[in-house]
Amino acid sequence: MTEETKTQRAAVLHGPKDLRVEDRPVPAPGPGEVLVRIAAVGLCGSDLHYYAHGENGPNVLRTPTVLGHEPSGVVVAAGPGAEHHTTGTPVAVEPAHPCGRCALCRAGRYNLCPRGTCFGSPPTDGALTEYLVVPEGFVHPLPASMDVRHGALIEPLAVAVHAVRRSGLVPGDRVLVTGAGPIGLLVLQVAIASGAASVTVSDVADARLRHAAELGAETVGAAELTPDPARATALADPEGFDIALDCSGNGGALVGAIRALRPGGTAVVVGNPSAPVTELPLAWMQRQEMSLVTAFRYAGDFPAAIALAGTGRIRLGPLVTASFPLDRADTALTTALTDRSQLKVLVEPGRAPDSGARQPGSAAQRSDSGARQEETARG
Amino acid sequence: MTEETKTQRAAVLHGPKDLRVEDRPVPAPGPGEVLVRIAAVGLCGSDLHYYAHGENGPNVLRTPTVLGHEPSGVVVAAGPGAEHHTTGTPVAVEPAHPCGRCALCRAGRYNLCPRGTCFGSPPTDGALTEYLVVPEGFVHPLPASMDVRHGALIEPLAVAVHAVRRSGLVPGDRVLVTGAGPIGLLVLQVAIASGAASVTVSDVADARLRHAAELGAETVGAAELTPDPARATALADPEGFDIALDCSGNGGALVGAIRALRPGGTAVVVGNPSAPVTELPLAWMQRQEMSLVTAFRYAGDFPAAIALAGTGRIRLGPLVTASFPLDRADTALTTALTDRSQLKVLVEPGRAPDSGARQPGSAAQRSDSGARQEETARG
Amino acid sequence: MTEETKTQRAAVLHGPKDLRVEDRPVPAPGPGEVLVRIAAVGLCGSDLHYYAHGENGPNVLRTPTVLGHEPSGVVVAAGPGAEHHTTGTPVAVEPAHPCGRCALCRAGRYNLCPRGTCFGSPPTDGALTEYLVVPEGFVHPLPASMDVRHGALIEPLAVAVHAVRRSGLVPGDRVLVTGAGPIGLLVLQVAIASGAASVTVSDVADARLRHAAELGAETVGAAELTPDPARATALADPEGFDIALDCSGNGGALVGAIRALRPGGTAVVVGNPSAPVTELPLAWMQRQEMSLVTAFRYAGDFPAAIALAGTGRIRLGPLVTASFPLDRADTALTTALTDRSQLKVLVEPGRAPDSGARQPGSAAQRSDSGARQEETARG
Amino acid sequence: MTEETKTQRAAVLHGPKDLRVEDRPVPAPGPGEVLVRIAAVGLCGSDLHYYAHGENGPNVLRTPTVLGHEPSGVVVAAGPGAEHHTTGTPVAVEPAHPCGRCALCRAGRYNLCPRGTCFGSPPTDGALTEYLVVPEGFVHPLPASMDVRHGALIEPLAVAVHAVRRSGLVPGDRVLVTGAGPIGLLVLQVAIASGAASVTVSDVADARLRHAAELGAETVGAAELTPDPARATALADPEGFDIALDCSGNGGALVGAIRALRPGGTAVVVGNPSAPVTELPLAWMQRQEMSLVTAFRYAGDFPAAIALAGTGRIRLGPLVTASFPLDRADTALTTALTDRSQLKVLVEPGRAPDSGARQPGSAAQRSDSGARQEETARG
Repeated sequence: MTEETKTQRAAVLHGPKDLRVEDRPVPAPGPGEVLVRIAAVGLCGSDLHYYAHGENGPNVLRTPTVLGHEPSGVVVAAGPGAEHHTTGTPVAVEPAHPCGRCALCRAGRYNLCPRGTCFGSPPTDGALTEYLVVPEGFVHPLPASMDVRHGALIEPLAVAVHAVRRSGLVPGDRVLVTGAGPIGLLVLQVAIASGAASVTVSDVADARLRHAAELGAETVGAAELTPDPARATALADPEGFDIALDCSGNGGALVGAIRALRPGGTAVVVGNPSAPVTELPLAWMQRQEMSLVTAFRYAGDFPAAIALAGTGRIRLGPLVTASFPLDRADTALTTALTDRSQLKVLVEPGRAPDSGARQPGSAAQRSDSGARQEETARG
Repeated sequence: MTEETKTQRAAVLHGPKDLRVEDRPVPAPGPGEVLVRIAAVGLCGSDLHYYAHGENGPNVLRTPTVLGHEPSGVVVAAGPGAEHHTTGTPVAVEPAHPCGRCALCRAGRYNLCPRGTCFGSPPTDGALTEYLVVPEGFVHPLPASMDVRHGALIEPLAVAVHAVRRSGLVPGDRVLVTGAGPIGLLVLQVAIASGAASVTVSDVADARLRHAAELGAETVGAAELTPDPARATALADPEGFDIALDCSGNGGALVGAIRALRPGGTAVVVGNPSAPVTELPLAWMQRQEMSLVTAFRYAGDFPAAIALAGTGRIRLGPLVTASFPLDRADTALTTALTDRSQLKVLVEPGRAPDSGARQPGSAAQRSDSGARQEETARG
Repeated sequence: MTEETKTQRAAVLHGPKDLRVEDRPVPAPGPGEVLVRIAAVGLCGSDLHYYAHGENGPNVLRTPTVLGHEPSGVVVAAGPGAEHHTTGTPVAVEPAHPCGRCALCRAGRYNLCPRGTCFGSPPTDGALTEYLVVPEGFVHPLPASMDVRHGALIEPLAVAVHAVRRSGLVPGDRVLVTGAGPIGLLVLQVAIASGAASVTVSDVADARLRHAAELGAETVGAAELTPDPARATALADPEGFDIALDCSGNGGALVGAIRALRPGGTAVVVGNPSAPVTELPLAWMQRQEMSLVTAFRYAGDFPAAIALAGTGRIRLGPLVTASFPLDRADTALTTALTDRSQLKVLVEPGRAPDSGARQPGSAAQRSDSGARQEETARG
Repeated sequence: MTEETKTQRAAVLHGPKDLRVEDRPVPAPGPGEVLVRIAAVGLCGSDLHYYAHGENGPNVLRTPTVLGHEPSGVVVAAGPGAEHHTTGTPVAVEPAHPCGRCALCRAGRYNLCPRGTCFGSPPTDGALTEYLVVPEGFVHPLPASMDVRHGALIEPLAVAVHAVRRSGLVPGDRVLVTGAGPIGLLVLQVAIASGAASVTVSDVADARLRHAAELGAETVGAAELTPDPARATALADPEGFDIALDCSGNGGALVGAIRALRPGGTAVVVGNPSAPVTELPLAWMQRQEMSLVTAFRYAGDFPAAIALAGTGRIRLGPLVTASFPLDRADTALTTALTDRSQLKVLVEPGRAPDSGARQPGSAAQRSDSGARQEETARG
């Protein structure tokens, strides 16, 4: 395998806003592992936290680390005993590394494995690189019809699939999604694909609500969900939402969503709460027997995510608003961090290093994206 | 309310193939009841059993009874205290009459109420009539966008919604449906609308498989599912179906469907088994920890059925293959009984008595229905 | 039926601490109803709120109302069509009056019926009276082996059964119960009877912890559960509790309980939160994919409660710490309100009016109850 | 570790009734593995099938194999990285070897792993030996209060826990168990410990029914459950059993159990069906919306089994009716095969080779076991 002897380029974070593209050896796949040539890597909020602040929640960058945990690519080599994926297979990579032996792993909840690690979560190196070694069970084939770069959105789509599963949605449910970022727009689509009678999306940004509407949502301004003090003692509306999924991480949005549930409804915390929630109406929720469920990452959700995307019922393309080659990963992170009009920014390690950003949407999708980054036309 | 003093026409079954259209008084809605003017009534297998043999399973026709339990219509009057539906509301009628007080009713499983009755199940009169009194909670508003006559398919659609709920389908599941009659074609559509990654439909009739393919299914001949004796001791294929729903009532189809499941898969009995199933591979199923679930009617499924149909994700029109006025109910039953190319035959009490059958499909749908009954052009 | 023409005594609340025992006519059971001669009525926190403050949460006493919603008694007459209970049957009375027709009722969640009322919840009169008319479906036979007065504890036991069902407890789970009042002590017992590997109970009062220990709990002081600031960023202990049920209504106890869960654990709000919970560690909970479920009253839980009590696996007697005749209901309420050593105080409308309180426990149980009310010796 | 260099004795099956006790090297634990000195091994139906016929269902003995998959013992050494169990810990051994990486393993259903193997299932050697190497995650500590030899019953107890979990039992359920062999008697106890209101046990053997009664069951002769032809068309009794678990493997018992369910009830296939079931009343079951669930082995159930046994709520001792040293394994198998009065026969590799069988029950338990093997008094 010639790749093993080559070097590759990797985007290494040394500290806040100190990202350096460096040479690293191409690793060799061990027993049960495959080598994946990375096509695209999506940037997500946790990448931006590490890039901007050198930390994300309780986890702190202490040693230079390659970021990136939303990769897609193509299998180019297999280690001993790895026999499930032939060379050339386009794949999405599930970035989790659970231990596989503890009680939580064995119960099917490997997203909670206390010994688990994850690509791109310091100090574990991630996917902003040309080649990645992955245990074969965490490599999921993509349908031939799918643009392999869109495979980089399978990870956030798996988050959405998992969140909807946790919600207990049954066909016919009326669903509320608060927050229309990439996760919110994917949760919206998964909810529709799972049989929601309707999905209402709220956000503070009108542009994001327009994206939601294009993807099938009814929309409502965030202010309209703000809890009315007069409702503090009223009972919930039996015609309220069956399920609310907060994808904003905003406490006010979560409380507003809970207030909009029907009796017995379920709220799901999908976005990581950015601040303590001080207004949770717990006594009122109990009187209505509501549930507050949380969803963390995914466990067994990649195949469903790929299947739904493969049928076309979930549209990934409209979420990709900019893309950069690996040597411009720094610009990609800055763009994702500062340009509020962006949805999902990709880094494409397979692109020529001198190419600029590109806006991959169709003309129809581009029409409402005047403010977006678009340095070069699409190849 | 002027209707109360009028008489109406009703199709009364006196014995096998002895259907008489007779005058009956228009009933008055009592407390909590509404009066519905019937637009359309779908004919179903149990109607045909009563019509052909004077019995259906254990239930026997002993007194002249009005058939019909799949009605849609318009609310035209409300009894005292019935305040949920305004006059003029188009509705689907849920034909069940559970007691509402027993342990099963109170647990939400009112389809199993031992004291329950049902429109059109002798000796309870049904809906092949012009006006019907219904408790307001069993009348479900239809969206304005829906042809009110298609509301007659909400009852079988609720059967399909219920069956899919009982299956425990989660988004991404691979689903097998055996039997492509009206229920099978609705189960197919509900499974897709609930997030099935794929739905494979089998049937002995190629024409029905073509309908299934038009509605999104992969198709397979029934013979291909016939259990291979060589598989009698083999383990199930891990790539097998997650869920199989038998809508054929045929024991061989059920066994073939079970043999096609993955380990841990679930089979659902939707169609009523027409004969004892003698080949159930129970020891093999246990080695694979498979489940065999049954589904009976519906409980709380009408709103979801209407919501899914209202969004257009379930198409009802293609299932309606013939329609007759009330005074030709006899011909409608005979057609449904003898013409294997029919899917759902409607009776429309609101149509002028001299009009013939009509084939309500679009030109595209008509193209493959040369054998269908079509006495008159569509009004 | 001679009772119909008699008058009876009833304890009517006219305002805060204004309870008057008055004459009222004995009602006659209507269709589907039975007349119950009340043996005992348990006093609960909501009774005490109405008695002390004239209100309970959002509900305000505006018209004189008979309190009491935890009655047991004997069926003494049946109305037309009520045929499930023969005269003389000892029963527990389920005090709910759901509508039985709305979507929540039909889904089996009648505890959430928006039109539901409840005995003793103003303005609906309750059970602190000699005779009560009840729909026959809400009257549940007691086993002959049970002291009929202990039937007054079936209502709080049904609360406990419902809470444990909502928790999703499976045999082998490690359970934490915060708050060792009557509900906590019943939840403890139901958890053990449902297969909990262990149940740990915390409370601020040592006397209550001793009760818990006698009933099978491991005990821990409330202070030991106080969240350690150092744990604010740590992950949950995989050896933590699978389930925590807060029966204290205290926000600090709830937060401490959540902090003691394993990853993926479930906390249940059973006691009504007495104040806003401001410290809920929602971001931490999400990282561990924990759930926060609420439980409100009961729905279909009386038969299970009676069955468990009937087998002796749940002991009700030790919870009854004082009992008064109806004409001393005022003293009963005052005792329950002011004497912190009390667990469950009963009012017995069938006792002679001049008898005092009695302490119904066995000698062994009395040994640790020096502070308890005990005006007269037992029977 | 001195054990590694020693030889040990092992009972090797060479063909039907050809069991030879041979010398084998004591294996060394590899990475993540521990070495267990076997205290006791329970004999089960599959052992007897291999011993009598050289095959069990589809699996055939083709190479000499050590039998035994119900071992308990003590950890005596640990391989590299195995750090969860200290030397001297008494343990039950879970005999499964799932791959841990396939979709079924990752979903928590590792009992269905298509690549899984099991101790004592040819050609995989089992536990009828002095020392066994086990991955540390499949070794489960026993409480100090438990006789380590009773740890050999944890495996069948885990089968019972798993079966009850699969049944969906909720506290208050009325349960029927058909078949009062070791598994049936354990399922009975788990059902009670899980909150069953009552458990009724049926069997053809009166002696077994007496065991069941001693362990808390109501009992009924098998003949009384024989389906009455007159019930062929009747509806199920709403007062029927909520759950039926067939532990007999007898088709007639299963059908009788199903006929005794309430509408909506669930039957669980626990015992492996010994012959095709030809009388399954599938149409009748569908009319009642009953479910037929199967249970296979266990997945994650050992900790719950040990916890329940450790609290004393499950009694294991009464099930042990005979015990032999390793060199008399042949006699042990013959006894289990031919003496119908036996429940669980143990082989104790740690006992001196010249000791005979012993009957480990207490005097009270021995009183009804005159027919049992008892060559020597208990040590």
